[in-house]
Amino acid sequence: MTSTTLSAFGEDASYFESYAGLQIHEDMIRDEVRTQAYRRAILDHKDYFKGKVVLDVGAGTGILSVFCAQAGAKKVYSVEASAIAVQTRLVVEANGFTDVIQVINDKVENIDLPEKVDIIVSEWMGYFLLYESMFESVIFARDKWLVEGGLMLPSKASLYLCAISDESFVRDRVDFWCDASKLYGVDLTCLMDMARQSSLKDVHVEWLEPEAVLSRPQKVKTVDCYTVDIESLRSTDASFNFTSMIDCSFTGFGAWFDVEFQRPRNYVDPFWKPLKLSTSPDLPPTHWKQTLFYSQHTVKIRQDDTIGGVVKLTCNNTFKRWINVEFEWDVVSRNGSIIAPANPN
Amino acid sequence: MTSTTLSAFGEDASYFESYAGLQIHEDMIRDEVRTQAYRRAILDHKDYFKGKVVLDVGAGTGILSVFCAQAGAKKVYSVEASAIAVQTRLVVEANGFTDVIQVINDKVENIDLPEKVDIIVSEWMGYFLLYESMFESVIFARDKWLVEGGLMLPSKASLYLCAISDESFVRDRVDFWCDASKLYGVDLTCLMDMARQSSLKDVHVEWLEPEAVLSRPQKVKTVDCYTVDIESLRSTDASFNFTSMIDCSFTGFGAWFDVEFQRPRNYVDPFWKPLKLSTSPDLPPTHWKQTLFYSQHTVKIRQDDTIGGVVKLTCNNTFKRWINVEFEWDVVSRNGSIIAPANPN
Repeated sequence: MTSTTLSAFGEDASYFESYAGLQIHEDMIRDEVRTQAYRRAILDHKDYFKGKVVLDVGAGTGILSVFCAQAGAKKVYSVEASAIAVQTRLVVEANGFTDVIQVINDKVENIDLPEKVDIIVSEWMGYFLLYESMFESVIFARDKWLVEGGLMLPSKASLYLCAISDESFVRDRVDFWCDASKLYGVDLTCLMDMARQSSLKDVHVEWLEPEAVLSRPQKVKTVDCYTVDIESLRSTDASFNFTSMIDCSFTGFGAWFDVEFQRPRNYVDPFWKPLKLSTSPDLPPTHWKQTLFYSQHTVKIRQDDTIGGVVKLTCNNTFKRWINVEFEWDVVSRNGSIIAPANPN
Repeated sequence: MTSTTLSAFGEDASYFESYAGLQIHEDMIRDEVRTQAYRRAILDHKDYFKGKVVLDVGAGTGILSVFCAQAGAKKVYSVEASAIAVQTRLVVEANGFTDVIQVINDKVENIDLPEKVDIIVSEWMGYFLLYESMFESVIFARDKWLVEGGLMLPSKASLYLCAISDESFVRDRVDFWCDASKLYGVDLTCLMDMARQSSLKDVHVEWLEPEAVLSRPQKVKTVDCYTVDIESLRSTDASFNFTSMIDCSFTGFGAWFDVEFQRPRNYVDPFWKPLKLSTSPDLPPTHWKQTLFYSQHTVKIRQDDTIGGVVKLTCNNTFKRWINVEFEWDVVSRNGSIIAPANPN
């Protein structure tokens, strides 16, 4: 079993403080794959947005709220809990939408609106899809404020997993202590074990090199943004079964996600094209990169051996925005015998 | 006046926790300019080290302690307050020096030694020389444990400053919002002011490009490691007067430091070569890089105009390891009239 935790933010105060500065918003808006996907999801559907009431959960600089106003929304409630809301108001004003967009500097759990909303738009996705747990606020807002038959943007999220064969990152960190020993004439090789252990226990947000992928990816989790509830997100698991395409060393798992902006249910528009924002390693890069989990054991496997198991995501008990991630897996050879993790090397 | 604070660590607990992991030690040992300077300062003087008692303040992985043992020290007290001390012991053992090196997992302020020491070695320098305030622990150890006439390594530290003309970093951050406005069709230019202000108020640890230097550097502060006291480091100032070599825009100050490993006072050895570890932008890079402070005002200046003033360093009231840095300056034209900061542009 490999158990690890995505962690950075502590309590809510430090979470919202991290969004009060401008750099994090620059990083998101600099991500054109992300921002253009939202822009198209909104501005390609002016007919639908016209006259609608919208709730933007976690508005940041307000760019998505402005897209909605440009698309013809009658009213946009732009909810932002961090101090960046001061800037959100400037952006609304600069774009001439003070009559349409109302910036509310509070958590969406605390707000009181004079009406229900037709559309909820939110860019809530964290690393590994669920990190930051911001989606819980979107679900809360959906249940309280979205009209029956309203539109969620995005409407569907999927988590993908693949098996990987790539020890280069770990090996670089470990081998450094061997090289340094030679360079300085001091035996530091006893630090290699700590270097290995600390590299393995971390979650790595990195680019996954296509050549490191040893199996076809699998969609392990689909989230319907209309129906999912908070409890089911706080503790969820997914099974996988990867067949190796090559003889190699299995070293861990890579993960990414996509979200879809689907047409409203019960709304017939033959010209509404499906739109997907994907963070796949095979597509143009996004600021989410991919998420890599290294196994404590490297296992030599052969083509057609399978790596099967379960990944469990649970809410961290100390900090609700952290996620604990546990992998349980074994490797079964093509003739059916279990070859790992019984004999790790 | 430009006022800014170098800040990251909070209280001591988080400071020492940051040294408990291996990455920070890898970054330091990867810095060959740093580590080879200490190696030479120790191993080039085996005659002097032979039979001596050494105190290593903040030993980390223990590499400097091992150098001292290799140089012939009779005893090395290797003091390390963070949990990396577990690894320090492994390194001592791997190098066969358990009889010579005694690892003490505590703050140097708390230790009790059975004897005074002949040599104190420590790599205590932080960004901008004094960030982290670790030198205070070295001074404490010197006053309590160093024998009369003992050796300090390093023995002298100098802080350098120059005037710079480089707005590229700030301009990139500011211009981003103009480019994004065009890209997405949303006016975000009202964020340019916040981008500028937040870029200017930060201290930047970056490589200083040689072409950004507009004046000859000046040594603004010299610290004699034998005589300096803690109080004088907690609040110190230094004056400067730079003459511009070119017509340009003055945008702020760049700083770096060097430390010297001088021969022991009252010790005559014609073969003891002076040795300096420098973080100058004109020399091979170190992990300290340089420290850049941007002015709130850009001032157009001409060749032979002078930028004169004072830089004040004070201990932060909230966290003793932070430093407040304040610059007070004006620009005087070559004919003697003050041209800034009266009329900033």
